[in-house]
Amino acid sequence: MVDDRPLDPATVVGVSQPTDRPAEGHPGILAVVEFDPTTGTATGHRLADPRAPQLTVTDLAATRGDGVFESISVTNGRTQALEAHLLRFAHSAAMLDLPAPDVAIWYAAVEETAARLYAATSASEGLVKIVISRGIEGGTVPTGWAYAFVSPDFTAARRDGIRIALLDRGYRHDVASTSPWLLAGAKTLSYAVNRAVVREAQRRGADDVLFTSSDGYLLEGAVSNLLIKRGDELITPRTDLGILTGTTQVDLFRWAEEAGYRIGYELLTPGDLESAEAAWLVSSGRHVAPIRAVDGVERPIDAERTAAMNQFLHDRPE
Amino acid sequence: MVDDRPLDPATVVGVSQPTDRPAEGHPGILAVVEFDPTTGTATGHRLADPRAPQLTVTDLAATRGDGVFESISVTNGRTQALEAHLLRFAHSAAMLDLPAPDVAIWYAAVEETAARLYAATSASEGLVKIVISRGIEGGTVPTGWAYAFVSPDFTAARRDGIRIALLDRGYRHDVASTSPWLLAGAKTLSYAVNRAVVREAQRRGADDVLFTSSDGYLLEGAVSNLLIKRGDELITPRTDLGILTGTTQVDLFRWAEEAGYRIGYELLTPGDLESAEAAWLVSSGRHVAPIRAVDGVERPIDAERTAAMNQFLHDRPE
Repeated sequence: MVDDRPLDPATVVGVSQPTDRPAEGHPGILAVVEFDPTTGTATGHRLADPRAPQLTVTDLAATRGDGVFESISVTNGRTQALEAHLLRFAHSAAMLDLPAPDVAIWYAAVEETAARLYAATSASEGLVKIVISRGIEGGTVPTGWAYAFVSPDFTAARRDGIRIALLDRGYRHDVASTSPWLLAGAKTLSYAVNRAVVREAQRRGADDVLFTSSDGYLLEGAVSNLLIKRGDELITPRTDLGILTGTTQVDLFRWAEEAGYRIGYELLTPGDLESAEAAWLVSSGRHVAPIRAVDGVERPIDAERTAAMNQFLHDRPE
Repeated sequence: MVDDRPLDPATVVGVSQPTDRPAEGHPGILAVVEFDPTTGTATGHRLADPRAPQLTVTDLAATRGDGVFESISVTNGRTQALEAHLLRFAHSAAMLDLPAPDVAIWYAAVEETAARLYAATSASEGLVKIVISRGIEGGTVPTGWAYAFVSPDFTAARRDGIRIALLDRGYRHDVASTSPWLLAGAKTLSYAVNRAVVREAQRRGADDVLFTSSDGYLLEGAVSNLLIKRGDELITPRTDLGILTGTTQVDLFRWAEEAGYRIGYELLTPGDLESAEAAWLVSSGRHVAPIRAVDGVERPIDAERTAAMNQFLHDRPE
């Protein structure tokens, strides 16, 4: 729910921009989640300055990528799929043996930062990143924060599409069940590879990546899910492949069923992508980006259907 | 080289502990590497308080594990294998398309923090962790620091040995050549898996892990290298398997050759470990820890040889 109380800028610690400042210049709104130093239990949150240092160099977020995160879409001030994101946040935390996040406290931190960002910028699209780490090495108190910021402009990707490269993720399709210690399917802070693959895709003349398993199945993007259209079916890769269950993909399946599609979770191969009538990478930030080329081979995009899906995502009620 | 100038505690920003305070209570010495905000070039370092926040929540070290690190052993104030660590640091940075670290500036930061820690604590063993990240998301200026702290007490592991569990790392042994975008062999900040495997080992009643490739070869520990003794040979896994070249292992091979061993880099299997007369995990912090059990099966440790290797490491000249 949007916090629509009148906002007193002076109460927004460290964020002194006037509300009519261009959105892209806004530093964002930060809420630091507070924990009881003795028990490690979350007790609430406080606003803080995102431009000022907040983390020590001994925080395991910074030294080991030892924590988990989520990125929640905010359209016209409304947080999207927040319950689904908080569920996945808790699931990731459990995979890393982190304490279960206190849902009410995280919910409040997300809603307040989202509402304050919208009040300050009127941005039609924002994102709230929530992060919990194992805290300072050797301690027992997590570190956590929610950071709301104005979205980058994804217009071109949504309209013109993206070129992708298929890259081997190195793991078999059954890695999540055979080797859970590899954390496949957890949204961790250890995303150096997710960033390296995008640089590799760029070296290949592409914009983004679609991971494949070492035994040849399609998995997910670096921070997105795959969706393909085949006749009256919308299909996404099975969720037991060590990939993330897409919060945006799940919402789109709701749209798809209302629009008369059959939906499905399958083991997909590069051949399925090649023969699909349309294909997309979908995510919380960029929403629906049609795939216009795979490994340099151009393919048609479905502009009308893409626009309909993006409109649906933008107009979702809270 | 140790900086042996008389230390004025007042100049050590934020570190006010008297020098006779127990080593384990010392907060460590932090040097933040400074970069030109326009060019991103390193310009020097400044001492800072390791207990105070130094990093923003938008630093890619904290949000994506997008950076690299090294941990350098300091024995009686002498930094060990520093050139080898700085070389590996640069190699890791190159694998992540990070700017090449300025060796002279990092060298000075390591030496100063190590010397100040020794002057403040007289600790016989310390570590200096150096970290460089891609900096704040969207920017072009890295973040970097060197943090010296007193080592944990590794006496028991060195004397009594460690129990290890073999865990599949999920990648084939040739992953570094087939899929360089997976960063296998780079020492990145994305170490959530390296920590998860130790928790998994503990669940199995072990202390540490030895990774295997998905096709069955022995790789490395979570933060260590494997060494086995076979007759008059000391053998470590080949360095082209997507593992780190061990700075401690390389120093021990120097010792081994002086002591009359033949040294070798090989493709090793669990059978080779089982039949080895002795086996160790070796690393910058813990030095040489004999393996006393593999997946619950006890094996003999070579106490005398282990002690000799640890003595050699401790007494290394700078």
